[in-house]
Amino acid sequence: MKKHNFNAGPAILPKSVLREASRSILDLHHSGLSVLEISHRSKAFESILEETKSLVKELLNLSDDFEVLFLTGGASTQFFMIPMNFLAEHETACYTDTGTWAKKAIKEASTFGNVSVVASSADQNYSHIPKNLKFPKGSKYLHITSNNTIYGTEVFKWPKTDLPLVCDMSSDIMSRPIPSEKFSLIYAGAQKNIGPAGMTMVIIRKSFLEEAMVRDRKIATMLDYRTHVKEGSMYNTPPVFPIYVSMLTMRWIKAQGGLVAMERRAKRRANMLYREIDENPMFQGTVAKEDRSRMNVCFLAATPQAEAMLSELCAANGIEGLKGHRSVGGFRASMYNAMEMGSVQLLVNLMKEVAAKLG
Amino acid sequence: MKKHNFNAGPAILPKSVLREASRSILDLHHSGLSVLEISHRSKAFESILEETKSLVKELLNLSDDFEVLFLTGGASTQFFMIPMNFLAEHETACYTDTGTWAKKAIKEASTFGNVSVVASSADQNYSHIPKNLKFPKGSKYLHITSNNTIYGTEVFKWPKTDLPLVCDMSSDIMSRPIPSEKFSLIYAGAQKNIGPAGMTMVIIRKSFLEEAMVRDRKIATMLDYRTHVKEGSMYNTPPVFPIYVSMLTMRWIKAQGGLVAMERRAKRRANMLYREIDENPMFQGTVAKEDRSRMNVCFLAATPQAEAMLSELCAANGIEGLKGHRSVGGFRASMYNAMEMGSVQLLVNLMKEVAAKLG
Repeated sequence: MKKHNFNAGPAILPKSVLREASRSILDLHHSGLSVLEISHRSKAFESILEETKSLVKELLNLSDDFEVLFLTGGASTQFFMIPMNFLAEHETACYTDTGTWAKKAIKEASTFGNVSVVASSADQNYSHIPKNLKFPKGSKYLHITSNNTIYGTEVFKWPKTDLPLVCDMSSDIMSRPIPSEKFSLIYAGAQKNIGPAGMTMVIIRKSFLEEAMVRDRKIATMLDYRTHVKEGSMYNTPPVFPIYVSMLTMRWIKAQGGLVAMERRAKRRANMLYREIDENPMFQGTVAKEDRSRMNVCFLAATPQAEAMLSELCAANGIEGLKGHRSVGGFRASMYNAMEMGSVQLLVNLMKEVAAKLG
Repeated sequence: MKKHNFNAGPAILPKSVLREASRSILDLHHSGLSVLEISHRSKAFESILEETKSLVKELLNLSDDFEVLFLTGGASTQFFMIPMNFLAEHETACYTDTGTWAKKAIKEASTFGNVSVVASSADQNYSHIPKNLKFPKGSKYLHITSNNTIYGTEVFKWPKTDLPLVCDMSSDIMSRPIPSEKFSLIYAGAQKNIGPAGMTMVIIRKSFLEEAMVRDRKIATMLDYRTHVKEGSMYNTPPVFPIYVSMLTMRWIKAQGGLVAMERRAKRRANMLYREIDENPMFQGTVAKEDRSRMNVCFLAATPQAEAMLSELCAANGIEGLKGHRSVGGFRASMYNAMEMGSVQLLVNLMKEVAAKLG
């Protein structure tokens, strides 16, 4: 049975990427060696790393003031590395509290310096993105989460601020063009729109790194961004295979028409599914309409019967990963770059079937 | 041309492991999903994680006092996590200085507490393992490196000590049985004897964790071993694919006869190559005989002509990765678990050819 992968992450990847990755595990570029057993100091890997970096720069339209790093440890490691590197004990950083991951970022930052939570939608179960933020004077940076995977909200209007903008873009990076000039640091786990789990992309503005580094804190070599900038992500053995697959995915994105094409598709998928959610009497959305994520569509069933029936129909039709996170309940359809319209159409058809039988 | 992979790491993996990994990238266990796109919270991955843990415990003969963790960040991250978790500012830890990686571990530890370097072979370019160690009273732990990848030395007599023993086993783990009861913490990057780059195995004694944790230091959630023990390596998204391939490799090790068989093969490979080094007038070893590593065999050519000729013969015969590290020069043959005797025999034949032509 053909599967339709709505997993929130690790998540769907393009079939052509999977086929090439599968071949390269047996033989990379007819070298007679597997991509899993080449040295990270080999010419073959050097060229993979270079191409991956240059694809990130090209797709996100990054100026030369940005360094692109490929690290490990996930967004959870960035939650503490950012304040460890940039927030001295007496300084204040601004954070928006827009969901589970934002809250974790806030918690880690609080152990290094002062955190000012400038906006929160916690009292409404994170069902919208707070707007019109105000910032305490002299803050060091503003940290936001551009897409909240668990609650299904996404930032469509970037905050107006003079503060250096730091963004957790884990679940919507490479799904739309971004105004890169607005950002000082962007980070993203690979396992949604880019590649398999095990690699974290960090995009950092060199001038921010020079100006904003804390001066009097001892930082372990591996946790100091300057180490990885200086060594070009090769201070120690990088996650070779996750980087390689990310390169393949970015080649695919470019060939499909880049981030403009990814955004067009994301809009089409999201519009189709949200329209059904709004029209179908057996289902309802959980998020303020203007903040609805194109990546993670959260919705509830009107009755336990409808919930059970959609779950059964999904199982019978090869739809995977639709169960909502326990914080919201109901359903969550994660629709990253590689998701085909046909899979969304199938889900919509099954929702219609539920309404026809129970409505 | 068939390749013979003597890379120091990332390194050779069993062909059958590569074949199964390649298949699972297209379709894991006939699920219709790639191993790269399954959720880390799925039953499929839960079972992979459990089997990997239980294979580690079985192969290394670990008692139930040990936890097995699958983290990221490489040995370089363990270099600082160990003192961060276990060495308070006023405490002293003992380290042996047996090569480049040991030195890096010492450097990171020094920023957290006092480090007593109880032995060093630095003045002889790390060509032997210091013995008969003595320890300052009241030390917190002893850190050793069991195999020095760059210099080609290996510890065959474990130090006699009452101190908790912490060991960087990155390049010889799973190549021989170990007296696991002697250790409090073992760590190893996967990319030599276990799997692809991107996963670090940490084996930690629960009683050590309870007794030895520093009390008054704020540690980021991701850097606190207790987080990962409590969450069973699932606090955040783990490196799914590197864990999966490591599981396949350990299944293969078990099927081959476990670590007794791995050690027997490692001895055969090493004996064959060291015998040639000792007998062949055109080559010489760089390491004290009793400390010669079975994993990384370092040797020099007697003349520049011999060095050039062996390099050319290797290139012409599909031998990869034989160039010595710049710290030692000459050649380094890394021969991990998956290395076949035929590849070692080929190298020996080429060395004989050099001697026949130049000797």
